[in-house]
Amino acid sequence: MLDLEIFLSEAATLVDAELDGLIPTESTEPKRLHAAIRWSVFGGGKRFRPGLVLAVGRTFGVGNDKLIATAAAIEMIHTYSLIHDDLPSMDDDDLRRGRATSHKKFGEATAILAGDALQGLAFKTIAEDERLPDDIRVRLISIIASAASTPDGMVAGQQLDLDAEGELPTADEIEKIHARKTGALVAAAAKAGAIIGAASAAEYAAVSLYAAKLGLLFQITDDILDITQTSETLGKTAGKDAAARKATYPAHHGIEKARELAKDLYRTLVSDLDIIARPTGLLKNIADRVMKREA
Amino acid sequence: MLDLEIFLSEAATLVDAELDGLIPTESTEPKRLHAAIRWSVFGGGKRFRPGLVLAVGRTFGVGNDKLIATAAAIEMIHTYSLIHDDLPSMDDDDLRRGRATSHKKFGEATAILAGDALQGLAFKTIAEDERLPDDIRVRLISIIASAASTPDGMVAGQQLDLDAEGELPTADEIEKIHARKTGALVAAAAKAGAIIGAASAAEYAAVSLYAAKLGLLFQITDDILDITQTSETLGKTAGKDAAARKATYPAHHGIEKARELAKDLYRTLVSDLDIIARPTGLLKNIADRVMKREA
Repeated sequence: MLDLEIFLSEAATLVDAELDGLIPTESTEPKRLHAAIRWSVFGGGKRFRPGLVLAVGRTFGVGNDKLIATAAAIEMIHTYSLIHDDLPSMDDDDLRRGRATSHKKFGEATAILAGDALQGLAFKTIAEDERLPDDIRVRLISIIASAASTPDGMVAGQQLDLDAEGELPTADEIEKIHARKTGALVAAAAKAGAIIGAASAAEYAAVSLYAAKLGLLFQITDDILDITQTSETLGKTAGKDAAARKATYPAHHGIEKARELAKDLYRTLVSDLDIIARPTGLLKNIADRVMKREA
Repeated sequence: MLDLEIFLSEAATLVDAELDGLIPTESTEPKRLHAAIRWSVFGGGKRFRPGLVLAVGRTFGVGNDKLIATAAAIEMIHTYSLIHDDLPSMDDDDLRRGRATSHKKFGEATAILAGDALQGLAFKTIAEDERLPDDIRVRLISIIASAASTPDGMVAGQQLDLDAEGELPTADEIEKIHARKTGALVAAAAKAGAIIGAASAAEYAAVSLYAAKLGLLFQITDDILDITQTSETLGKTAGKDAAARKATYPAHHGIEKARELAKDLYRTLVSDLDIIARPTGLLKNIADRVMKREA
């Protein structure tokens, strides 16, 4: 696993530098908006999604220079969604990655605008990435915008999650919610790497399957962590999901069953990787690491 | 002016049909989200920005089929901005175009998500418009995303407007706010028509100048209307800007001076059109119509 740690740490450094170059500085007007954007973007994120773009791209033999802007754009969309999810009318969270959420620090209006601006900057970034041919840029924007919006993307997932609050959703409903809320953008990150890497149709399909399962796995282990860890370790308010009767796997199946579900997913995910006739060790290591979060 | 009325009415019909085809139906899950999106998108908007895309495109000899998806996408972005601007933490408006605002009807969380989804759908729409070559799609997304976000776009304008509230901004500050808050997206609409119409660099520059002035003119006449009209005529709460000490032209210059400013702008705008060696009558008529709102 040492190689993976080095890879992810190097990826995070590259992504941070790219984001720093793409986002207006805090001394650019409107300063309050850019301070808020930077507060959330540089708030200690693990850079999992951009790391996945780089990892899949590397699997298909592409250099980081062609992947990095798209990776940064996907992190912008992820960050915008966190800012909006934390708002008082949504999940009402005061704490994110161990620091004040955007609306607690900058007020609701600026937090909403910071998220809005980040979504726009993400698509601008890909559209203006001259290291990629136009047809690739168009395909990237298409799959990422689909993954971010509705009916099968992230915003739809957040709405379904809100709609389900206080009820006890079925196992199918939980999977539908999480496939959209978390899975769609994780899958888009992996697909983006495959698109830039000129994957064949069969390889692209295998990467899509791998990524959909990885996203689900990520969500299940996240839900388990929410129950088993303290707020301090988590860097956000623990036990919130249970308190809000959120649609989670452990809430529906119990922790032990959720852990088994994660293991089953992991096994089929690893076999999806066998379809790809490329060195997929890095992608397997990433899945291993997501599994390990459960411990 | 009869021709313009017919043109704008036909444009609105075309844009409405395109939007109807692009936005998931109310029976698509999550139903509440799609109902909210449709409530605001089909809430009686004048379709000024998409009309401008079609008008500029026609000026350069392009058929509506190549313009309509981009026109609809720009209306999606405009609608998302209205939904978010109306939120309690922003302008806190209950009424928009004579009906309940999104958050009054669907709640704040769904209103925020409806706006978020619309922004994503807008870029998806352009990226997937197969009637346009890839390089044109990329250019369109670049200029529209810049116009929508920050530091020189719509979201930056909204932030500057919030920052200025309760203060008395200078004339320069007011122009800076409005150039971003309203002007940027109006200008992007006109530029989009010119890009799809394969305008020369000189023509593109002239269209950009025309559009920037048209956007400013639109804002000044809007500010004057806010003071001189009743809520009933306006379809939104009148006098709100003055009550909130918002950055407006009439608040700074007085109504008479604001009217003169509008007339000056109109005159230079018309002379910008002379640079374009195409039939620009329609574009002049649109400016005439924006002027007429003042009456």
